[in-house]
Amino acid sequence: MPETRPFVSLATDFGAAYTAICAGVIHTIAPAARVLVLSDEITPFDVREGAMLLRQALPYLPVGVHTGIVDPGVGTPRRPVAIETGRGDVLVGPDNGLLVPAAEKLGGVVRAHALENPAYRLPEVSASFHGRDVFAPAAAHVANGAAAADLGAPVEPVPLDVPPPAIEDGALTAPVLYTDRFGSLVLGAEPADLAAAFGELAPGTPLTAAWSAGGEAGTVRLTFEETFGGVAPGEPLLWVDSSGWLGLAVNQGSAAESLGLAGAGSLTLRRAG
Amino acid sequence: MPETRPFVSLATDFGAAYTAICAGVIHTIAPAARVLVLSDEITPFDVREGAMLLRQALPYLPVGVHTGIVDPGVGTPRRPVAIETGRGDVLVGPDNGLLVPAAEKLGGVVRAHALENPAYRLPEVSASFHGRDVFAPAAAHVANGAAAADLGAPVEPVPLDVPPPAIEDGALTAPVLYTDRFGSLVLGAEPADLAAAFGELAPGTPLTAAWSAGGEAGTVRLTFEETFGGVAPGEPLLWVDSSGWLGLAVNQGSAAESLGLAGAGSLTLRRAG
Amino acid sequence: MPETRPFVSLATDFGAAYTAICAGVIHTIAPAARVLVLSDEITPFDVREGAMLLRQALPYLPVGVHTGIVDPGVGTPRRPVAIETGRGDVLVGPDNGLLVPAAEKLGGVVRAHALENPAYRLPEVSASFHGRDVFAPAAAHVANGAAAADLGAPVEPVPLDVPPPAIEDGALTAPVLYTDRFGSLVLGAEPADLAAAFGELAPGTPLTAAWSAGGEAGTVRLTFEETFGGVAPGEPLLWVDSSGWLGLAVNQGSAAESLGLAGAGSLTLRRAG
Repeated sequence: MPETRPFVSLATDFGAAYTAICAGVIHTIAPAARVLVLSDEITPFDVREGAMLLRQALPYLPVGVHTGIVDPGVGTPRRPVAIETGRGDVLVGPDNGLLVPAAEKLGGVVRAHALENPAYRLPEVSASFHGRDVFAPAAAHVANGAAAADLGAPVEPVPLDVPPPAIEDGALTAPVLYTDRFGSLVLGAEPADLAAAFGELAPGTPLTAAWSAGGEAGTVRLTFEETFGGVAPGEPLLWVDSSGWLGLAVNQGSAAESLGLAGAGSLTLRRAG
Repeated sequence: MPETRPFVSLATDFGAAYTAICAGVIHTIAPAARVLVLSDEITPFDVREGAMLLRQALPYLPVGVHTGIVDPGVGTPRRPVAIETGRGDVLVGPDNGLLVPAAEKLGGVVRAHALENPAYRLPEVSASFHGRDVFAPAAAHVANGAAAADLGAPVEPVPLDVPPPAIEDGALTAPVLYTDRFGSLVLGAEPADLAAAFGELAPGTPLTAAWSAGGEAGTVRLTFEETFGGVAPGEPLLWVDSSGWLGLAVNQGSAAESLGLAGAGSLTLRRAG
Repeated sequence: MPETRPFVSLATDFGAAYTAICAGVIHTIAPAARVLVLSDEITPFDVREGAMLLRQALPYLPVGVHTGIVDPGVGTPRRPVAIETGRGDVLVGPDNGLLVPAAEKLGGVVRAHALENPAYRLPEVSASFHGRDVFAPAAAHVANGAAAADLGAPVEPVPLDVPPPAIEDGALTAPVLYTDRFGSLVLGAEPADLAAAFGELAPGTPLTAAWSAGGEAGTVRLTFEETFGGVAPGEPLLWVDSSGWLGLAVNQGSAAESLGLAGAGSLTLRRAG
């Protein structure tokens, strides 16, 4: 017997309780749905971190309705949106770039519609909790079979604002996308960018990473490795994380804490002299 | 085909693991139930914060069995209780006021019974983990169809201990109910209390808020606003939060941190001179 | 109608998002499964804490597939494993001792197999995220009915590395297993060990606890109690926690913080003079 229950996920910067209230709204409107909280602990207001999480996670979730809410603009006229993907998902959230990188990973944007139809909102919409009053109800109604086109007018989603990596011969400067749970920094650059700057790097190749954070400049010597196990515990490394981004980590430790990297906006990698 | 699976929620100050153990007990006894963790991160022993969370959240969850556990008195003879509401929910938890404000929001207390029947507990009841041994099993058996009256003797639930707001002509003093995930303070006063102190306030009206915290007195000038977007990022405001309480917040920031409000027990609002 | 949906749990040190990605893989492969996150907040790399959590929690969860992932050796040749228990569960995770104490609580190890079969992994296996690529898919396939023997070669699981308590006449030295959410220390010793050192202790018996942490020696006078309520708020006590271990706690407070116990590896208990 095939499973036909719809699948709904939620990723927010709300913490446990407010996210669960959104889940409760979904359970009320779409009682047959499976509901998964993908995250309730995105850094508050960090649209970039949320976008990278959705891009990384959604390909591993069932095709379904995926709600992403990091919404510094709640209470302003920013648009709520639903984006249908090539894989058949519908992504629901604020139209601030949060959903777009994930949609691109899921087969691209097929169509997008503003969330305007009052039938797919709660009867009363508050000024500050659109997760509960607008996004969760829309997601639940889509899970129940509502068509994206019934939600509102077609729109062109706003792209995510992320600087591209800067590639020179022998140097790669990449934005810090976010710091993960283990204190590792995930960078907005891929192995192809590394190869463009340095050629093919063998595991163990020594590099330097330089940054500024809180007005202080910092630098560290590290090696490029295929796995954490390539360096001793407590030692730093550059590696390719499970989502395909370059990352700066400390084996069994926190790079953000032990290297003083918290707050760094970008890193410049060079071959060690 | 209507969904007939019973719905059970859990809100605790236990953290993830101990809350999930309670969920596991519910899944074992009531395998057909949908189980939602409403929160596992209530501030430990903060009955008032837990009560306000349940009051705010439960109206948005399906009618069901809602378990709330913030229980400084575990191991003492405080009573475990189940409260049936006018909406048809059953609230399960310690009889320390935690459940009562939510019950009032859900159509009032229809009946309440002590959790005494050993058939609805685990075979062994520990001294310190009644969530697992008493509350979760009772909730699961109610989800399976046990009647509230079978749980134990009828009781009158203990009310929650919260001071009311103090209203003067031109001044409103309100208790701080809790600090939310974003560092905003939620106050035990409603827009009607504000109107009683000041008359109708137009958006943008300047006010002062005064408090004492940790032996230090503090004060801030702010404006009454309908939305966060009414002030610039980093600026403080008084607004009405999504649960209908007054709140003191900083747009895209933490009022508790940036204003030194952590630990304030009450706030006094006055019209700015 | 009996519930026949399989049950899968997840306990990790990954935080919310990466744990939920594993849950998403399980929902994708085994759409009929009930999936419970037992914990996503085990202290990173703390195999002992994770093992004690699984040992404590799994007896209260339904018979099912239980995934435990605390894996400092990811990316090295440490073995992934599935362990079938006497109760009928299958425990899935790294073969580093994490799963063994729980298996012993669940009727013992019936058989164990390495996770080798590529049919039960994701098509691409990353170097750093075996939770997503190896453990979650194996758990989901077992939930779908795959036999443990199809997973790979039979193996003998590695035991957990924990020192036993040291019992003398009038003194008991016990390792600190972990610090719980409330700041209480859970010790690797049981009431029988206490009785072996001191004979039967009546509630209220005064003891001393001595430790060293961060190069500083500490000591505290406390009483042995059956419940937290046996001492006033803010007072320390030795008690038996809900999983049957001895514990050092402060009533309505944090023993780790108020006594300076964070970082203590073991405690020595003696009768107070």
